[in-house]
Amino acid sequence: MRYTILSKENIHIDIVPGTNYKIKQLKDKFSYGTDAIFLSDFAKPKGLVMDLGTGTGIIPLRLIDKGKIDMIYGVEIQTQVAELAKESIELNKLENKIKILHMDLRDLQKYFPKHTFDVVTSNPPYMKEGGAIVNSDENFAISRHEIKCTLEDILNITNYLLKPLGKFYLVHRPDRLVDILYTMRKYEIEPKYIKFVQPKIEKKPNLILIEGLKNGKKDLKFYDPLIVYNEDGTYTDEIYRIYK
Amino acid sequence: MRYTILSKENIHIDIVPGTNYKIKQLKDKFSYGTDAIFLSDFAKPKGLVMDLGTGTGIIPLRLIDKGKIDMIYGVEIQTQVAELAKESIELNKLENKIKILHMDLRDLQKYFPKHTFDVVTSNPPYMKEGGAIVNSDENFAISRHEIKCTLEDILNITNYLLKPLGKFYLVHRPDRLVDILYTMRKYEIEPKYIKFVQPKIEKKPNLILIEGLKNGKKDLKFYDPLIVYNEDGTYTDEIYRIYK
Repeated sequence: MRYTILSKENIHIDIVPGTNYKIKQLKDKFSYGTDAIFLSDFAKPKGLVMDLGTGTGIIPLRLIDKGKIDMIYGVEIQTQVAELAKESIELNKLENKIKILHMDLRDLQKYFPKHTFDVVTSNPPYMKEGGAIVNSDENFAISRHEIKCTLEDILNITNYLLKPLGKFYLVHRPDRLVDILYTMRKYEIEPKYIKFVQPKIEKKPNLILIEGLKNGKKDLKFYDPLIVYNEDGTYTDEIYRIYK
Repeated sequence: MRYTILSKENIHIDIVPGTNYKIKQLKDKFSYGTDAIFLSDFAKPKGLVMDLGTGTGIIPLRLIDKGKIDMIYGVEIQTQVAELAKESIELNKLENKIKILHMDLRDLQKYFPKHTFDVVTSNPPYMKEGGAIVNSDENFAISRHEIKCTLEDILNITNYLLKPLGKFYLVHRPDRLVDILYTMRKYEIEPKYIKFVQPKIEKKPNLILIEGLKNGKKDLKFYDPLIVYNEDGTYTDEIYRIYK
């Protein structure tokens, strides 16, 4: 096991890309990925927003100034990382705009009335439950594997939380695309837009960004893909725009 | 209504790309598209093969020399186009290897035993039933709209025809992706590979090629996309390889 102690030396304070906010991260363990950055670029938040599995709170911090937002909740089951997220919110004096909920997202039904959220976002664990060897470090594993929540759990609670025509924004892996689309439709979050992230032009996608519409009409559209690297290995202009 | 009479002047005999076979087509009406060419490049036929909605028979003609094939059946509901397909098979003296069945694919259950085919291919009508204005020319409309068969019909009969671990190859439009993946899984044809066709690099896909596996394990993989045009508007090398 690595990094089991929350030592001061391992905590980094970084600037949240595209903002002036600060974020606390635990080196090599609780750090946001490009996935969260792409998702928060893709999402169009407004009103009441819920981020499922918020981790260090990167998505709420990226979204808070992006639209006309009443409040963003970020729910996180892991104690250490939820603490870090809370500290980051305080550090930025955003306590009145972002609330970190340290709880199991499956329990959100006890805390919020049905069909009241405008937007739900999620950068969930990608690995199928039982689908791969689970890392021996429990916290590391929870962020990456569907131990504490499955796609079913996420879509079930999203269906509960979202208003009719409320929007759902998800980042996930292409190898789970069938599960994602099937489960979204099952829980009445109709997939409306897909944007693939391709490491290079002419290469297959390694991430998917999806927008769903609660009780939406069946009609899927694609955006042009997001290409990360130019042929020469430098970042594309689009990546520079996203990271500013 | 246009082209209601099967006049001699409108019949063209062309070479099937990548083969020495000939194909009869009716100008502007019953002509194969690039979709069928891409699908027959993507598919890996063997044993007993069924092509659902075969049109002019382009897919059987493209596939017949591609693998170790016992027989290819092509089913087509439209009288005129089924006749054209039969004439093309005779023209190429392939009557012992390709059979054109002029019938409703929903009736195939009456003619074949359950779970006996190795491969099913389909380039079906793309438009959702009732989803768009139907062309006043009935034949034209049947090829493009789900009048005579829906995705459900296609997957239902594919499930009936395919052996366990038999393969299904489909070309379709990206805007139907959710319907396709949902219906495939529903009928136990698990989507295994996706290849997008992009008109140009950095552009969203305008066609999807999908391989499904009867009773397959849940595990989707992507191929690198097929790019049709170079930046300068010329065809890519891949397109030249496919068309030879």
